[in-house]
Amino acid sequence: MPFHTQKLSNGLELIGETLPSARSTAVGFFVKTGSRDEFSAEAGVSHYLEHMMFKGTPRRTADEVNLHFDRIGSSYNAYTSEELTVYYAAVLPEYLPTAIDILADILRPSLRLEDFTIEKNVILEEIDRYEDAPGSMAWDHAKRIYYAGHPLGNTILGNKEGIAALTRDQMQAYFDRRYVAPNIVVAASGSFDWNQYVDLVAAACGSWPTTAAGRSDLREARGAGGVHAVQKTTSAQEHVLAICPGPPAESRMRYTAATLALAVGDDSGSRLHWALVDPGKVESASCGTDSSQASGITATFFSCDPDSTAENLGIAKSILSEVQKDGITAEELEQAKNKIASRVVRGNERPMGRMNSIAASWIYCDEYADVDQELARFDAVSLDDIRQCLDRYPMDDVTVVGYGPVETLA
Amino acid sequence: MPFHTQKLSNGLELIGETLPSARSTAVGFFVKTGSRDEFSAEAGVSHYLEHMMFKGTPRRTADEVNLHFDRIGSSYNAYTSEELTVYYAAVLPEYLPTAIDILADILRPSLRLEDFTIEKNVILEEIDRYEDAPGSMAWDHAKRIYYAGHPLGNTILGNKEGIAALTRDQMQAYFDRRYVAPNIVVAASGSFDWNQYVDLVAAACGSWPTTAAGRSDLREARGAGGVHAVQKTTSAQEHVLAICPGPPAESRMRYTAATLALAVGDDSGSRLHWALVDPGKVESASCGTDSSQASGITATFFSCDPDSTAENLGIAKSILSEVQKDGITAEELEQAKNKIASRVVRGNERPMGRMNSIAASWIYCDEYADVDQELARFDAVSLDDIRQCLDRYPMDDVTVVGYGPVETLA
Repeated sequence: MPFHTQKLSNGLELIGETLPSARSTAVGFFVKTGSRDEFSAEAGVSHYLEHMMFKGTPRRTADEVNLHFDRIGSSYNAYTSEELTVYYAAVLPEYLPTAIDILADILRPSLRLEDFTIEKNVILEEIDRYEDAPGSMAWDHAKRIYYAGHPLGNTILGNKEGIAALTRDQMQAYFDRRYVAPNIVVAASGSFDWNQYVDLVAAACGSWPTTAAGRSDLREARGAGGVHAVQKTTSAQEHVLAICPGPPAESRMRYTAATLALAVGDDSGSRLHWALVDPGKVESASCGTDSSQASGITATFFSCDPDSTAENLGIAKSILSEVQKDGITAEELEQAKNKIASRVVRGNERPMGRMNSIAASWIYCDEYADVDQELARFDAVSLDDIRQCLDRYPMDDVTVVGYGPVETLA
Repeated sequence: MPFHTQKLSNGLELIGETLPSARSTAVGFFVKTGSRDEFSAEAGVSHYLEHMMFKGTPRRTADEVNLHFDRIGSSYNAYTSEELTVYYAAVLPEYLPTAIDILADILRPSLRLEDFTIEKNVILEEIDRYEDAPGSMAWDHAKRIYYAGHPLGNTILGNKEGIAALTRDQMQAYFDRRYVAPNIVVAASGSFDWNQYVDLVAAACGSWPTTAAGRSDLREARGAGGVHAVQKTTSAQEHVLAICPGPPAESRMRYTAATLALAVGDDSGSRLHWALVDPGKVESASCGTDSSQASGITATFFSCDPDSTAENLGIAKSILSEVQKDGITAEELEQAKNKIASRVVRGNERPMGRMNSIAASWIYCDEYADVDQELARFDAVSLDDIRQCLDRYPMDDVTVVGYGPVETLA
């Protein structure tokens, strides 16, 4: 068994998958916190804090953080989502100790007021650029409207007023509350020695605080419903999202929902592709799932010339209704499964892909699944499963949100 | 030895690297043709033809080409460069026969006049979009000026007038001249049976014409020199390229040149980074090599506010002069090697990466190098090698081209 797990006495969890044939190693610190864990007065702090992690520690200046990552030739970065903030590096095996040393170090940041103030402008500029990207804004508005007050509707970047008002002490308080040992999973995959890895992480993180950090709002969210238009006259295209409920990240039904979404809206050879993209009615169209803890969604998206929004929305909704009524065909299921099998295999060919897979599986389901097990679960999806998934999470139970020049979609 | 090679009686070459631990297989048809092989009256035909390859064959309509690739869950695409046109797919091992069948089929396209006419508009739109991307245009102009009449200065997309005037018969003639068996290498890497692969390719491609197809102009190109400004007043930024000669793709000195370029201009921790990017003087800066058959270059790039172009060009040129005079330090060499080792390992972890590596090595150097051999060659680069490379290909022997609002850079 290549999988190992151990919990330190302070609650920090380690997982690892040793792949003897790998020539590199990926390691990531998965902090179970994100925009859904923010109070409204600290909106955007998770992402802002992720930036601050690279601004220096008692042991390293910001330049030294980059220099030390660089010296070992690592590929390193971080990202923030609704419920995870992840710091990771891929390195040659001999540099894993250094990578762990740097990652553990930056996760105890100095959070100096001067750096905080400088970085605030970087964040505000990032929000400006984001607001110029209508596809991203459409997604943010659609989530906000669909979730109607549920914290999963929070934006990751926050808003400019809130970021401008945020103080260093608020960030420190958020850090103290969320970056505690029991809220962190350290995952590694590739070529490494499990016992040495445990010793390294224990030495670097063993003294981190042991405060518990749960997640406050674990209601299953169901959509607000209705058809909404958020007008943005400067956008050339209308961006439309139709969101229906879907299985949460810890549900086995997510394999079925992902297969179904692919058959409906993959970027080639799907129903949406043939009905909207191939005849040139829309610029792009897709359908995909997004699973979070206790809640999931399936989102159908298209962007098109504003004048043809109503026609295209009609086509998209009739596809969703047909699927809801009749499911998909055996041939569509087969094709979707072939695509997924290929993507699962190729997405897991590198240690970085495996690191993300084993962390997600462990964080949401407390289990380890190797690539064969993942493949078997997708391969087992039947037309009956598709029917059950549709009954439980109706695809035509949509909340529709348009973002662009169109004043009203209804 | 996991590497195999065989030449069919018509001259088509097969290479393959069997990796028993891989779970997928990548296969690519490498046609040794590109913009450098075009007569001026057919400029852009290589890339246009690449598009036409997906528009149908006597056995498959365009929709069927996509559908059949899709059914097997393949990740497939094509690209055109100055001297290669490559068609490839990554699949699960059981679908390799189908992938070979489709790829071989599309490489004998119908080239129907109706499809040719429709696709012409797609190409013209692609040129329009390209002309809106100042970074890409800067690169095209810099190559054109540096190569001063040598075919490596040809643009890949061609120009709108030429594409508009191009006829189907001209494309057919180019196809007949260039897509002949001796000008094609089929490469596979991953999990597959070599003998079965040879049988499949031989059955599909054994009757392809055996005409010879060389490359006409194999002079080593040296730059035109001088400082040139191509004014584009609608660009917000000035894009500047300083190009010096470098080793060709078949030279072992390319390992040294790539290491040197990384030390000078990698996107983090390099001389250009510290001098230009870190203090915020430019938006981006980089240095990299581009090796072609018989000719190579090293290109130093930055983009910045037009008003500070002269200052930044002065800084960039003084870095190149310093490096030319004193080389780089042992520490810079060490850091560059660590980065390269990590990138070589990670870039070769998937069959698709290996397929590209073994094809390049075979096409340019008639040799096979496994990952360990590639790593050893980079690891062997010494400060003496850097000195020899600089003596042979002076970094300060630059042709400078600016693209943007600035009227004159000199």
